[in-house]
Amino acid sequence: MSETICALATAPGGALGIIRVSGPQAFDAVSAICPVCHDVAMTKTRFLSSITDSEGNLIDEALISIFRAPHSYTGEDSVELSCHGSSYILNKVLELLVQNGCRMANPGEFTQRAFLNGKMDLSQAEAVADLIASRNKASHQMAMNQLRGGISSELSQLRDQLLHLTTLLELELDFSDHEDLEFADRTELLTLARKIDEHICRLIKTFETGQALKQGIPVAIVGKTNVGKSTLLNQLVGENRAIVSDIHGTTRDTIEESIDINGVQFRFIDTAGLRDTQDEVEQIGIERTIQKIKQARIVIWLLDQRPSQDEMDEMDTLSKGKSSIYVHNKADLINLKDFIPYVLPLSMISAKKGEGIERLKHRIYEEAELAGLTNNANDIIIANARHFDSLKRAHDTLQYVLDGLYKQISGDLIADDLSLVLSTLGEITGGTITSQETLNNIFSHFCVGK
Amino acid sequence: MSETICALATAPGGALGIIRVSGPQAFDAVSAICPVCHDVAMTKTRFLSSITDSEGNLIDEALISIFRAPHSYTGEDSVELSCHGSSYILNKVLELLVQNGCRMANPGEFTQRAFLNGKMDLSQAEAVADLIASRNKASHQMAMNQLRGGISSELSQLRDQLLHLTTLLELELDFSDHEDLEFADRTELLTLARKIDEHICRLIKTFETGQALKQGIPVAIVGKTNVGKSTLLNQLVGENRAIVSDIHGTTRDTIEESIDINGVQFRFIDTAGLRDTQDEVEQIGIERTIQKIKQARIVIWLLDQRPSQDEMDEMDTLSKGKSSIYVHNKADLINLKDFIPYVLPLSMISAKKGEGIERLKHRIYEEAELAGLTNNANDIIIANARHFDSLKRAHDTLQYVLDGLYKQISGDLIADDLSLVLSTLGEITGGTITSQETLNNIFSHFCVGK
Repeated sequence: MSETICALATAPGGALGIIRVSGPQAFDAVSAICPVCHDVAMTKTRFLSSITDSEGNLIDEALISIFRAPHSYTGEDSVELSCHGSSYILNKVLELLVQNGCRMANPGEFTQRAFLNGKMDLSQAEAVADLIASRNKASHQMAMNQLRGGISSELSQLRDQLLHLTTLLELELDFSDHEDLEFADRTELLTLARKIDEHICRLIKTFETGQALKQGIPVAIVGKTNVGKSTLLNQLVGENRAIVSDIHGTTRDTIEESIDINGVQFRFIDTAGLRDTQDEVEQIGIERTIQKIKQARIVIWLLDQRPSQDEMDEMDTLSKGKSSIYVHNKADLINLKDFIPYVLPLSMISAKKGEGIERLKHRIYEEAELAGLTNNANDIIIANARHFDSLKRAHDTLQYVLDGLYKQISGDLIADDLSLVLSTLGEITGGTITSQETLNNIFSHFCVGK
Repeated sequence: MSETICALATAPGGALGIIRVSGPQAFDAVSAICPVCHDVAMTKTRFLSSITDSEGNLIDEALISIFRAPHSYTGEDSVELSCHGSSYILNKVLELLVQNGCRMANPGEFTQRAFLNGKMDLSQAEAVADLIASRNKASHQMAMNQLRGGISSELSQLRDQLLHLTTLLELELDFSDHEDLEFADRTELLTLARKIDEHICRLIKTFETGQALKQGIPVAIVGKTNVGKSTLLNQLVGENRAIVSDIHGTTRDTIEESIDINGVQFRFIDTAGLRDTQDEVEQIGIERTIQKIKQARIVIWLLDQRPSQDEMDEMDTLSKGKSSIYVHNKADLINLKDFIPYVLPLSMISAKKGEGIERLKHRIYEEAELAGLTNNANDIIIANARHFDSLKRAHDTLQYVLDGLYKQISGDLIADDLSLVLSTLGEITGGTITSQETLNNIFSHFCVGK
């Protein structure tokens, strides 16, 4: 961190472009290109300045903001240059900064420095990237909880309990001559260890919700050809497309068939028709559809006539463990008075006429809510695969602890495993990560300028 | 301007997103969504704050910058909110600001207010838009000159001279009884008026350069089919493509066949082959090529064999008033030792092997320089069609003044025309524009948030 880094922190193309500079030479580098800095930088935190190249050519008139260490995002001396958003100007200013001792920042390097300078822990740093990527209420709320230290505080609780367990174990070791004492303690230890494991398991279980909220809850629309799957998809997506592309550029990461319902993202998975299994090519298509159903959390069975008992059984088998929604399409073509629903509750829609679509969306949201995928309770959710992995490994190691306590294995061996659980959990907040490569890998998924 | 406006000032998609708020309610609106503002806004100019909705839900943690009137870009009370660059957050914050009394800003409305509050004149305000759009050194320098008041100061000179002329004319009117005095004065008046007209004409003439620098100097590559036009175009453009798209998003406004040479943009115009005039369809293609040659300022005649005298004459006729560059392609296929150049100077290239391309680029730049299109002298250049139009109308009206002075028409009639010249020139800096509609029309070409 002896190097001074610079990067464009905003997307190119706007009225303004913000260039960030951070590191020990930040003030020197900016002073070299902003003549006025020499006079005011020591006394002011914000001022207008011209930016000139080494030959004195005027590049821009910019608003310069000075942040003195440690009162900056990175914790280092930092400067933000608010320039006119011209690609020529922004390129030129970065070029001048590099000429004056800065280097271009790697993705996430500002946040990485904030972490290394103790401004935030690793899970909070990762929340910054998630926050920037958040496109809807649910993913935003999840990232915001994490940024505010939600996961950090859960882990802090777990750490306290694990340290308590370790202390008790050490106490046991101190009194290891008294055999009857040991037995009494072990019950308490076992109860405590089980409590910790339950807590870890509870967090692990939230990962599925976290993934669903982050990437969109997968919904498969399944049905025979010509039953109206595409029409339904267009109806579901069409009205919301305008909202999704509300701000230009938001669509670039979104899957085309994603929509927001009540601030939660649902990702619709296209499937081929499911029936007529004689044909071999057809069979391959069906295999694919079955795979896609497996990826889904919610399955919409789109029907236009009463299914046979075999078909009903097949639907039940295929949607085992999923939330199923049975929908009868082409409601405009039947006489509702005489129509007897063949499954309850059955949604009636006319995809073609756009009837019943809002009711169906509400149904989809309810199913997600029932499956615990909408996080209304505002609980702590694990959405990061790295955190999930650490928790799983902590859980696995904890099984040895439980086993050891149960089987009356020597306390010092158990203490080793406990210590491993602690350091594995410590990876999440970053306290026990010592490898620069691991850190670089984590931050490489960030955008440049953050 | 009693309304408070807000807009996203940066392009969406970056690490940061800056929201601008300006107007009498700016502080109130921001205070309503940033609880911490109440405590610190009166004493601080910059602080971190949470942004919350009316139910207290946390939307973001942002850096808030306070600008008190008149010390802001617009001259009004203003706030900049530096948020995390998530589309959800930015949309939400704008929504909250609108809920609290702001309205979404129109394109260029911040700069329009800066103009109306006397922070800059109209030609400077327009330079802001040009500066943001500038993609290379030449267009950047031109906009920067204008922003720094280059055009304003030229117009100020003209205005002084016109006022002097008016004073002299009034003097003449005061002494209108003395007929001999009048004659003496008119010669002086005529000289002065001619001098003003020459100055205006000089500015009018720069418009062609201004347009060329702003939109790229048009270069037509003309030649028979199979002479290697496409290969040459790819060679010219290919190596530079990486530079053009250096920063993502810069390409969206550029024409694909544009390149920078020494900081000046050249725009290559594709043409069809020129010869074999028997076929009727072919003839239409040739008509189009001739049209394209007319649009160009520089014509590259690409040849692979000695043209006939007729062909030479035709090339001369077609490129009349243009800069012509004769290029012999496929230099790798001829024996240079025995080759006698059929026109001097003749560039030898091999488009296929990429030989002679850099030399040709240098040649193209030299031709542009000779034609006065590169503005090395850093003169004041008129690049704005609105300014051009005002100057032309001022010039036209000035002809009546000159005519009147020459024909000894009564001084008060000439004074009316002079006054019209003054107000026409005043449109450029905006002093004589009173219609809100005209202003809105000028600023509607700006981007939102500026």
